Order: sequence, then structure tokens, then C-alpha cells
Amino acid sequence: MNSEWGTKFRLSVFGESHGAVIGVVVGGLPAGFAPDFDEVRRELLRRAPGRSENSTPRREGDEFEVLSGMLGGAATGAPLLAFCRNADARPGDYESHFPRPGHADYAAWVKYGAFNDCRGGGHFSGRLTAPVVFAGALAKQLLRERHGAGISAIVAEIHGERDPGKFDGAIQSARDAGDSAGGIIECRVRGAPAGWGEPIFHSVESELASLLFSIPAVKGVEFGDGFNFAKKLGGEVSDGLTVDEDGKIAFLANHNGGINGGITNGAEIVFRVVIKPTPTISAPQSTVDLRTNTPVTHSFRGRHDPCIVPRAVVVVEAAAAIALAQYL
Amino acid sequence: MNSEWGTKFRLSVFGESHGAVIGVVVGGLPAGFAPDFDEVRRELLRRAPGRSENSTPRREGDEFEVLSGMLGGAATGAPLLAFCRNADARPGDYESHFPRPGHADYAAWVKYGAFNDCRGGGHFSGRLTAPVVFAGALAKQLLRERHGAGISAIVAEIHGERDPGKFDGAIQSARDAGDSAGGIIECRVRGAPAGWGEPIFHSVESELASLLFSIPAVKGVEFGDGFNFAKKLGGEVSDGLTVDEDGKIAFLANHNGGINGGITNGAEIVFRVVIKPTPTISAPQSTVDLRTNTPVTHSFRGRHDPCIVPRAVVVVEAAAAIALAQYL
Amino acid sequence: MNSEWGTKFRLSVFGESHGAVIGVVVGGLPAGFAPDFDEVRRELLRRAPGRSENSTPRREGDEFEVLSGMLGGAATGAPLLAFCRNADARPGDYESHFPRPGHADYAAWVKYGAFNDCRGGGHFSGRLTAPVVFAGALAKQLLRERHGAGISAIVAEIHGERDPGKFDGAIQSARDAGDSAGGIIECRVRGAPAGWGEPIFHSVESELASLLFSIPAVKGVEFGDGFNFAKKLGGEVSDGLTVDEDGKIAFLANHNGGINGGITNGAEIVFRVVIKPTPTISAPQSTVDLRTNTPVTHSFRGRHDPCIVPRAVVVVEAAAAIALAQYL
Amino acid sequence: MNSEWGTKFRLSVFGESHGAVIGVVVGGLPAGFAPDFDEVRRELLRRAPGRSENSTPRREGDEFEVLSGMLGGAATGAPLLAFCRNADARPGDYESHFPRPGHADYAAWVKYGAFNDCRGGGHFSGRLTAPVVFAGALAKQLLRERHGAGISAIVAEIHGERDPGKFDGAIQSARDAGDSAGGIIECRVRGAPAGWGEPIFHSVESELASLLFSIPAVKGVEFGDGFNFAKKLGGEVSDGLTVDEDGKIAFLANHNGGINGGITNGAEIVFRVVIKPTPTISAPQSTVDLRTNTPVTHSFRGRHDPCIVPRAVVVVEAAAAIALAQYL
Repeated sequence: MNSEWGTKFRLSVFGESHGAVIGVVVGGLPAGFAPDFDEVRRELLRRAPGRSENSTPRREGDEFEVLSGMLGGAATGAPLLAFCRNADARPGDYESHFPRPGHADYAAWVKYGAFNDCRGGGHFSGRLTAPVVFAGALAKQLLRERHGAGISAIVAEIHGERDPGKFDGAIQSARDAGDSAGGIIECRVRGAPAGWGEPIFHSVESELASLLFSIPAVKGVEFGDGFNFAKKLGGEVSDGLTVDEDGKIAFLANHNGGINGGITNGAEIVFRVVIKPTPTISAPQSTVDLRTNTPVTHSFRGRHDPCIVPRAVVVVEAAAAIALAQYL
Repeated sequence: MNSEWGTKFRLSVFGESHGAVIGVVVGGLPAGFAPDFDEVRRELLRRAPGRSENSTPRREGDEFEVLSGMLGGAATGAPLLAFCRNADARPGDYESHFPRPGHADYAAWVKYGAFNDCRGGGHFSGRLTAPVVFAGALAKQLLRERHGAGISAIVAEIHGERDPGKFDGAIQSARDAGDSAGGIIECRVRGAPAGWGEPIFHSVESELASLLFSIPAVKGVEFGDGFNFAKKLGGEVSDGLTVDEDGKIAFLANHNGGINGGITNGAEIVFRVVIKPTPTISAPQSTVDLRTNTPVTHSFRGRHDPCIVPRAVVVVEAAAAIALAQYL
Repeated sequence: MNSEWGTKFRLSVFGESHGAVIGVVVGGLPAGFAPDFDEVRRELLRRAPGRSENSTPRREGDEFEVLSGMLGGAATGAPLLAFCRNADARPGDYESHFPRPGHADYAAWVKYGAFNDCRGGGHFSGRLTAPVVFAGALAKQLLRERHGAGISAIVAEIHGERDPGKFDGAIQSARDAGDSAGGIIECRVRGAPAGWGEPIFHSVESELASLLFSIPAVKGVEFGDGFNFAKKLGGEVSDGLTVDEDGKIAFLANHNGGINGGITNGAEIVFRVVIKPTPTISAPQSTVDLRTNTPVTHSFRGRHDPCIVPRAVVVVEAAAAIALAQYL
Repeated sequence: MNSEWGTKFRLSVFGESHGAVIGVVVGGLPAGFAPDFDEVRRELLRRAPGRSENSTPRREGDEFEVLSGMLGGAATGAPLLAFCRNADARPGDYESHFPRPGHADYAAWVKYGAFNDCRGGGHFSGRLTAPVVFAGALAKQLLRERHGAGISAIVAEIHGERDPGKFDGAIQSARDAGDSAGGIIECRVRGAPAGWGEPIFHSVESELASLLFSIPAVKGVEFGDGFNFAKKLGGEVSDGLTVDEDGKIAFLANHNGGINGGITNGAEIVFRVVIKPTPTISAPQSTVDLRTNTPVTHSFRGRHDPCIVPRAVVVVEAAAAIALAQYL
């Protein structure tokens, strides 16, 4: 497996859901950068489960120790190790010979054979987004420090509902039905300067999408008007240019989500990702007993969220921050 | 600019819309691979403009010469150079001090200054998709030869129309209005084996999206049910497993588009991309005179498609083929 | 800092000499690979200090814990974390405002400013070769398992002495003089098949040298006859081909050290590296007080080897193993 | 084959000795950079054969056309294509079933089979150093422009002779004997600032060596005192620091060749490479007839230099320039 990403701000993620540890080595931090670790902790709490009745009761305890790369509160320039021992792991909760529909179990079994650690998803687990959030929190601080850039995402839709007042109800309904609900997250980046990205390959969209599609359950990414462009004429979606009061070039609209020709144009970067419903539900599902190669119907147990969309918001922000930190 | 992509099947694209040449160096071809260049030419024709009244009248003449890496009809293993001299270039058609809304002009001006070649988009031009189609045609042949894999895309929607019988009319309407129309392309890959891709970073979705977002005008990518997942419950989109008549594990549904946990599961890979309407239209648009930093209204001239969606179909296939050729 | 290396068998090294930990994340291990960790430990002991009166008395205690990527004795395919808490660290032994001649102190001070962790060399320390030896021990086992390949290095020269019987004396003399001695290590790889490497860039020599020059104190690398080629005629160093008793193509000589045109030819790979004398010695040295920008003469204290050549042998083997593991 | 190198200043080399073309795509040139192509041509002439009676009579005609990436004399930021049609190619001069000792022929035959283009070495040919010199000439200009840095190499030794007055005689002797002579090239880089490179992996030495070992016939690389360090005590090779008249930190010696801990220290970078004698000589050599797998004695014909060391000087400078251009 290749669990490394980035050329300038770099991550190497390790660990398993029900293994001993999870963590990340972050490379490329500038010497002298003094992270606010309280803020990092708050970001991790936004992702943590167990905060409401609507998320998994597992207490993950995302207490990361920083064990290298820092001296006297400042980054030295050397790789930073963030390291977390798993608490509350229950390796026995999963049966590996019944691949869970919609999960990586079957694909991983083909690829890695019986050696794959499928306890709770192992290295594929959504739990591995915790080190990504850790690294993303650092990237966010760097973007803010260097460019005043801010990244914030919100839940835009849950199970077809777009009214935030109805999100809890939609999740509760899914929960009551022993089912799970999907949704959409919208993210905006303010303050990114014009000029980031490359034409053709390595467009800003390519880089952002590469990381966003690394988040488990993300199945679509769109920028600006996204899939709605398919219903539009060019004249309806023209982002005309103008000169603002300060004499700066500005845009009269932002259908393109702040990116033209793969390069940021200085307008707000806007994108949306769709999160599929958690595939583990209480209803019995069709699967195969890998020991006997026979179809079976199986009820999967375990501790799961009826809707991971709210917890994924900070993960989406983290992924965006890491992708954009390549341009610092 | 970084116009290289890939780790195993590698591209280095060069050239400009109205410069002397366009082309590509393809690295990583296996020695002994004997490409069918007639098929490559047919693929290039699918992208070529001027084939119908609905596309730009420019005659691009995509006649690529293969000048290295081949001996006696077979690849030697050394880099293959595909090289095309531009014909019918009209450098004078464009005025560089009026950035075209929705194009890369302004972002490129910020990034590269007055040195950017903005004649017809220069290196940002859609014309640079021709070398991508060339390389993609080779990748397709390799995928077919090694795995019997086939890639085919279709136009799924144009300006809100989903009935193929009405596509021409939709384009004609846009043309008549001096406007342009967007649309959606759907692509399917049959025969890709289970086990391609990586968990977390470098998922198959990440790699495909990285290349798909390199195609000019692509503003969204979704896999399987994509953004429709936001309206679904987990129980509605469960891809149950079974055992088929030949004793092979198969899926009862394919909401996930052939990919779980970032890794192919052996089912058909299905994805859709949205193509925004060509931003150059005949109506006057708001822009800025970069010489004087003043807002102006300008009518842009040039030769343009009212709808590039049909021509982009083969580009989408090429991008998919190149991304998947990393796993050969 | 970029402390990552490799595309297939990948390392991400972290930690500092006098920080909390050192360690490495190893990516790309094949699922099912069952490392012999006793052998890994023996390799680490070959590098460890304090084994003889001729090496530094520091007790480093290279006890690595493996905390991810393994299940039931076999690699899962996920990243392996090897992690070691530093014992016996004495941060107070070093004075950072006097850059030690021949060490990275001054260059690092220019690059990272006052934020550099220069306690005992920090991330630059030779202690960071321990995680490299750990990873190299895994790479060695993989090379043996897959190809029967074996890597072994020896001390070829110490302070001009080429007779192994005189090495201890040479080291003792340097020690008695409060000085340090350099030397040469020769390494041989048996069993590497023909066909590894690339012409031009990424030759096997390039890849091996890239890692060998990552070992602190290595200042030269030569393959086969190396610098002696400068004194030879072509006719004297012709590696003629023949057919051996088993009908296999073999070589009548091996002046090229098993590599032609950047690619292994199936003969033994032979190379030599030179290790400079440890720069920290007991005699006072000329340096600069960085606080006042004035030249000073300073006697540096600390615990140091009079000759690191014997301990570097296993590091050279490890570097070679990691470089060659890219071809598995 | 992977004939690409670099992350910031990037090359993709293509072509064959006796194919249609050779050339290079250079990526990463800064927009606005205005190369002096007359100087590039002079650099190419330094490498060109046929200038004296001591080099191969082949007229290579290294006339590169620049076909993309330039507009009005300045780089646009897009990839630059330098392209040269081969003249005077004589494909019939070589017999591919007799691998030449010391050449890549046999290794390439194992790796690429009968598909390898072995006419004159094909893609392995020393002729492929011409595009490297082209790219290196651009890199040199950039280094001079940005840092006032200058790179110059000299022949330091030919067939054991270190007196430049005797180089021609040494070459003539080898020529008269139908043999070839090896030698050493010494290169110095003035003006490189302190702070380039990385500790551990990706040291400046690693990056330089990676490219230097890409030059055909280079079999050794050493920095500063290099292999002589093996005969020295630490006290003899201490590069003490001081403060010069301008109040700048300087070094009292430069045994380390301008690099400490993998990072430039601001002193002159000094390194040496050894060039083995050209393996093709007029005397009959032992080889194998690959058609029948039988040993034979064969006299190889062709046009060859008795000593390529003088022509390699500019190639060494080019490789150094390209490696160091990664830090611009």
C-alpha cells in the first residue's frame, strides 16, 4: 500500500483501526513554524465519534503525541511524528470471511489475500482520517499564517434534505430504520491567491480531487457549478471580470469555483463532495462465505454511524488544506 | 508548468495551440508492444474538429509522426515521441490584453506574466488534448492486450437533454444563439481486474480524477451513483455479493461503480464527468483591459465549438486509459 | 527536510539523536512477507555503538517496536511502523553556537536557522542510520527470498591500512591521538538478476549512489574498478562474455562491477564507498561563535567513535538492499 | 525505460543513436527566462565529435530546433522541446547478435529482448548526452542569472597522466594501439549558496551523483578529498570556520568539497568523476553469438573515440547544472 501523499507538505500515514497505533509522519514543515496544538486538538474533536447520539459509541481517544520534529514549541524542519495508541479496540467484533458489501473487504482480500488486516477495516478504516485531520490542521494554520487563507466546509445535504434544520431528523430516521444516510459537503477556501496550480496535469482541481477521493465514502467531487454546468449555456455561466474599488481585478460571478485552466484565479475556491451512506447497516445483506465460496445472507454487527457526513466535514477541510499546502 | 503525468505509463506533453508543434513523449511502453497506429489515427479523428457543422471549422490536421521508441513495428522500451506540426495556426486571432472570462487567460497572466503564450490558449488550449488522445490510444491497446479490458464513453446529457435523439438539436440551438452548451459524459471500463489501486491516498478514484480534471472544461467527476448517493439510504445502495454460475464471486448491484475502498472490485468501473459550456461565445462579455486596468465590454472572436462534449468523449476515454495503464 | 526515499520499497525516517524517538515507516512491503525479526535485531547490533572499546560508549539501545503493518507474524501490505524511544540521551552535551567543523551544524544553521535541533546532530545524526538498518534488514530478507540474492560488505581499508590484521591498531592509534580515522568499505551483491535499472537516468549506479551518499560521512562511491579505470586501457578492462558449463552466458571478468549501461548484467555487483574520518576530535578546532560572529578556537566534547568505518559496514549493506528492493 | 529526471527543472530525453531524432523536453523553466542560444550551441560544440583527430569521425550535427515553450525570445513557462534530426546515421554498422563487452548490449538484450534498438547503442548511446548538454546549458544560465554561480570542469587525468601537457600523447598512444583510454574529470561550482540539499536522503551529493552516474562510462564519483579521506586522520581534514574581512563566515579549508551533512555550506563544490575507457576497441574480444549461444571471438567495427574524456567534460558540467537547478 502507498499511504504517502504530497511533494512539499508531505504525509505518511500508518496504523490500523484495531491495531496498536495510528499516526502520521508530516514532512516539509518550515523551520520556525509554531503550531497551535490546542487548535489541532479541537479539529480532531470535530471528527471524533461519540459526541452525539447519532454517531458511533466507540470512544476513539484521538490523543496524538508529537514525538519528533519540534523543539521549544517550533518546528525544526525535520519530520514531525504524530502518534496515537488505540484505545477501546475490539478486534473480535468482525468476521473476516464475510466481506461487507460496499466496504473494501472483498477488494482487499483479492489484493492482499488472507494477510489483510480486516479488523474494523484495518488500514482502510475511516479511523485513519484522524491522522489526516491532524496533518490538515497544521496545513490550515500554515495557509492562514502565510496567506490569511481560510477553509470552511458545511453539510449541504443529508438524505436529500438541504434544510440544516432537518438534518438531525434525517439522520434519526436512518438510525431508527437501522439504516444509514448519505449527503453532500460544501467547502469554501477564501484567500487563496491567484496562480496556484498547473495547466493540463496537476491542475488545482486534480490535486484537490486526488486527496478528496482519498477520504473513505467520497464518490464525487465538483467545482463551482459542477454538474449543474450540464444544464447551462455559456452565456449563463460567464464569470466576467471587473476592477473593484481598490483597483484590483475581481470577478462578477464565480461559476468556476475560483479555478480557471487548472489555476486559481483569486476568487473563492468552491467545491462539493458527496458522501455515500455508510455501507454497514443492521439489515441482513447478501455476501459470500470466502471459506466455502458460497452465497450467504449475513447480519453484520459492530459500532457504526448512521451518518458520517457531519464528522466528515473537518476531514474534507483537512484534505483541502493539505492539497493547497503544496503551493506554499 | 508541469505537463508530465504517471509513474509507470508516463506522459510528457508539449506544444501550443498556435505554436510550431504539439506532441508527447510516452515513457514506460513495454518492449515488444506493437501498437495499431491505424486505430490511434481513428481515435484522433474522434477528437478532431471540423467533422460536423457543429464543431469549430479549424482544420487541425492531427497527423502525428512517431520518431523514436519504435523499431520494426514494435516498441523498443525507449521513450516514444509523437510529434505533430501545427497547420492552420492563426496567431493573430486573439487579443491577449483582454482576458476571456472562464478561460485560463487571467490566471495564467498572474502566474506567468506577459510571457504566457495566450495565442488560442497556448499550452492551455484544448488542442493539447490531441497528444493525450494519442497516448490514451496506446494505453487502451495495452489494457485490451493484457486484460481484455475495454473502455467506452458516451454523451449522457447535453444542456439538460438526456435523450440522444435531441443532442444535435440542443447544440444547434446553442449555436444559433451564438452561445455554447455543457453536458455530461459517462464512461465504463469492462474487464479491469479486482485489486487495482491503493487504500487512502492513490485510490483508483484519486488517480482517475487526477487525470480527468486535467481535461479542460471538466468541473466534476463522480463514480457509480455519485451525487445521487446523497439521496439514498445504505440499504438502497448495497452491492451485495454472490457466486455466479462459474463459481466466481460477483456483485448483485454496482452502485459503487466497481471501486471499494479505493480499489477495483472486478465489477465494471463507471464514472461520469461534467463538461462546462465553452466560455467563448459571441455575446459581448465583461472583462478588463490589462493595459489600463479598466473594465471593458468586449466581443471575443475566434473559431469555437458551440459544444465540445461530443469531441471530449474520446478524451475522457484516453484519460481513463492512461490512469489505468499505471496498474499494468 | 525530505527524509523519504523509494518508489516501491519506501522509507520515511523520523526522529532526532537526543529527541524522544527515532524510527521509520516502511511502505510497499508485500502482503504475506514474514520478516525474521531476530535477524533484524542482529543487524541492528552490528551497527550499535559500545560493543568494543573502539566505539562510542553511548548505549543507544536500538530496541525497535513494530506497531503497525503486521498481523500474525506476516506483513499485511499496510505501512510498517518501527519505533524506538531514545535512552541515554544527553541533550546538554552540545553547545549549539559553535558549529563543529566538518559537521552539518553550520549548513543547517543557514538553512533552518536557530530552529534546527542540533543536539547531537539532531535529525542529521548518524543515529538516524539505525532506522535505515532496520529497513535494510527487511529489504535484505526480501531480496534473499525472491532472488536468493545476498549482500555483504567488509572493511577494505582504515587509515591507509588494507591488511585487516592491522585495522584495530590503526583505530587504536587514532584513538590514542585523540583523533579519528577514515576508511573504505567494499560491498558485493550476489544473485541480483540481469535487467535491473534504466539507461541514462535512474541507472542502478544512480539509485545505489543516491542512497549511499545518504549515509553520513560517505564522500565517494565507485563501481567495479572505479577510479582505477583512469589508469587503464580498454583492452585491459574488457569483460568478455562466454557460455558456462550450464549453457548460461557468463563473464570472463568483472571490471564493470556487474553493471553495464546502467543495468545489471547478472554478474556480482561490486562497489566501494569511502568514509571520512569522524570530524569530532579532541584537539581544539577553529570555529565561529555564532552569537558574536567572531572566530574562536574550541575544544568539542561529547561521546564519539575514533573510527565509524566498522559500524558503517551494515549501513552500507542496508542502503544497497533498500536501493535494490526497488526492483522487486 | 525511464528517461525522465528532476522535480523542479525537469528533463524527458528521447531518441536513438541511429534513429530519426534525438531531443529533450525541458519542464519547469521560469516564465521570462531568455536563454542565450548561441551559448547553448557553443556548449554543444564542446561535446560534438569530429573536432580533432582524436575523436570519432562521425559528424553528428547537433543542430537542435526549439519548437515549443518560447515566445519572442523568452520562455513562456510551458515545456520547451529541443529537437534534432539525426544526420549521418549508419544503422548497418552494428551487428546486434554479438553483444559488445563493456557495453549495455547484453544487459539490454536480457531486459528488452530482441526489441531493443541496439544500432549504435540506440537509446543507451553516448549520443543521448547531447540533449543533456542542451538542457544543462539552460540550467547553467539560470544558475548564473539567479546566483552568479559558475560551473567548470577540467580533465584531471588521462590514462594515469596528470600533466595536461601529456594528455594528447596519452590519447594518441591509445589510438595507435587500437585501444582506448580512461580518465578523471574534476568539476568545481562557485557561487552556490549555503543551504541547498537535504539531510539523510536527497543530500546534494545524492542528487549530483544520481545524474553523474547517468552519464555513460562514469564509474565513480567523489566529493572533496573523496577516496583520499581513507588515508587521513580527522585532524588533517578539519575544515575550520572563520570570519572573513567582510564579516562573513568562511572556511579555512575545503576537504569536504563544499557540502556538510548533505547540504551546501557556501564553499566551492568540488567533485571528481572517473570515466572508464571506451569499451569498443579494435582488438578482437570474447563474446557470445546470441543466435546460437556459443562463445566467439569477434572484432567490432564502428566509429569510436580512443578517449571520450575530453568530450565528457561539458557533459559533467551539464549534469551538475541540472542537478543544482533543482534548488532554484
